[in-house]
Amino acid sequence: MTEPTNTLPNLGAAELAAYIDHTLLRPDAGTAEIAAWCDEAVTHGFKSVCVNPIQIPLVAAKLAGTGVGVCSVIGFPFGASPTAVKVAEAAWVVAHGATEVDMVIDIGALKDGRAEVVRADIAAVKAACGSALLKVIIEACLLDDEQKALACRLSAEAGADFVKTSTGFAGGGATAKDVALMRRTVGSALGVKASGGVRTRDDALRMIAAGASRIGASASIAIVAEADAVSTGAKGGY
Amino acid sequence: MTEPTNTLPNLGAAELAAYIDHTLLRPDAGTAEIAAWCDEAVTHGFKSVCVNPIQIPLVAAKLAGTGVGVCSVIGFPFGASPTAVKVAEAAWVVAHGATEVDMVIDIGALKDGRAEVVRADIAAVKAACGSALLKVIIEACLLDDEQKALACRLSAEAGADFVKTSTGFAGGGATAKDVALMRRTVGSALGVKASGGVRTRDDALRMIAAGASRIGASASIAIVAEADAVSTGAKGGY
Repeated sequence: MTEPTNTLPNLGAAELAAYIDHTLLRPDAGTAEIAAWCDEAVTHGFKSVCVNPIQIPLVAAKLAGTGVGVCSVIGFPFGASPTAVKVAEAAWVVAHGATEVDMVIDIGALKDGRAEVVRADIAAVKAACGSALLKVIIEACLLDDEQKALACRLSAEAGADFVKTSTGFAGGGATAKDVALMRRTVGSALGVKASGGVRTRDDALRMIAAGASRIGASASIAIVAEADAVSTGAKGGY
Repeated sequence: MTEPTNTLPNLGAAELAAYIDHTLLRPDAGTAEIAAWCDEAVTHGFKSVCVNPIQIPLVAAKLAGTGVGVCSVIGFPFGASPTAVKVAEAAWVVAHGATEVDMVIDIGALKDGRAEVVRADIAAVKAACGSALLKVIIEACLLDDEQKALACRLSAEAGADFVKTSTGFAGGGATAKDVALMRRTVGSALGVKASGGVRTRDDALRMIAAGASRIGASASIAIVAEADAVSTGAKGGY
C-alpha cells in the first residue's frame, strides 16, 4: 500500500532515528560486528539495538550509559518453544541487561483458536520481563485479519507494551495496512512496531503515518541518511 | 554436485524411509496438521518425526509404541540463544518425550574462533539429553571448509551422536560435498545428517552416497513415492 509521498510526515534524520530499533539478527554475526553495530546506534541516536539473546551481554556493556536501549528477541523467529523456555530466555536477557524484549507468539495455537494458550504464554513472558518493555510479534503475514486483531487483543490483555508486525523471517514483513489494523485494535494504550522489509525512508514514514510508534530495521543507516539528504538537499524537503 | 545416477545406491521406498526424519517446522502448523504428519510417518516407516519444541508432547503421544522416533529442534534456527536456554529447552523436550534432539551451534562464536564456547555449548546440551540422540547442526552454508571441519571435531569432542549440515533457513541446504567433508572428519564414530533442500529421491540418494546416514526432509512422501515408482516401474529400477 503506497501512500502519496506528500501525505507522509516530515521527519528529519534525528527524529526518525528515535523510532528505530537498529536490528542485527544474522546468526553468524561475531563480536566485532555486534560491537560496531552498537557504535552506529550511538552515533545515529537509534532507539535501541536489537539482537539475538547470546549477544545481549556484549550489547549491554557497549551501550551502558548511552541512552540507547538494549533489545533482545525471544522465541525467535518461530515462537514455537514452550512457555517455560521463553520465560527462561526472557529472564536471562533481562538479567544480562536487556531493556526491551521482542517475543514471538505461539502462532500454531493462535491459528488453532487456542486463545488462552496464546494469552498465558505472553503473560508469563511479561512477568519475566520486570521493568523491561515487552513487544509481542504476531507474525501478521501468517494470519488473517481476524487473527491479527485477536493476537493484538490477547497481547493487550496479557500486559504487553507493544504489538509488532513481523519477524522478517516468515515470507512477509510490515505493511501499512497491517499497522493500521493493529493501531485500530490497540488504540493508544500500546505501541505498534513495524518491522520486516522496512528499508527506505519512505517505507519508514509510511509505517509511521499508518500508526507505527516504533520501526525495526537493519537498513537503519540508509534510512536516516535518506532523511538527512531530503532535509538538507536541493529539493528542500517536503 | 550431481553424480551420475547409475552410481547411486539402489534403495527401495522402505529402505529409504528408514533414513528420513519427516520434518515439519512451519511455525503456523496447528494440532491437526501435526497429528496428520505423525500418521504419515507411521504409514511410511520414517525414522522420526522432527518438529518444533512446542509440538513434542503431541508428537510423543501420537507416536507412542510405533517405533517412530520423536525429534525436536533446539535453539533453532539461529543457534543464538545462551547455553542455559538451550539446556532448558533440551531438558523440556526430553522430559516430554523427545528421543532425538537437533541443536544449532553458536555460529557467531565459531566464526570468531571461540572454539571452547562452541564445544561447551554442545556438551551442556548433550548432558541435558540423557539417552536421547544429539545431532549438531553446523549450518554449513555460513562456514568455510576449515570451519565446517572444526565444527564437526568440536561436536565429536563434546559427545554428539550426529553432525547435521543445515537448518534449511540460512539460505543454503545440504550438498554432497559438505556431507563428504563431514563424513571424512567424523569417520564412522558419528552419524551425518543431510538436511535442507533434499526434495527428491535422487537428492536423498546422492546424500547417502556421499556419506549421510540420516536425511532430514519435508518432501519425504514424494521421495519415497519416487523410490517406489522406480523399484516397481516399467524401467525396472537401476
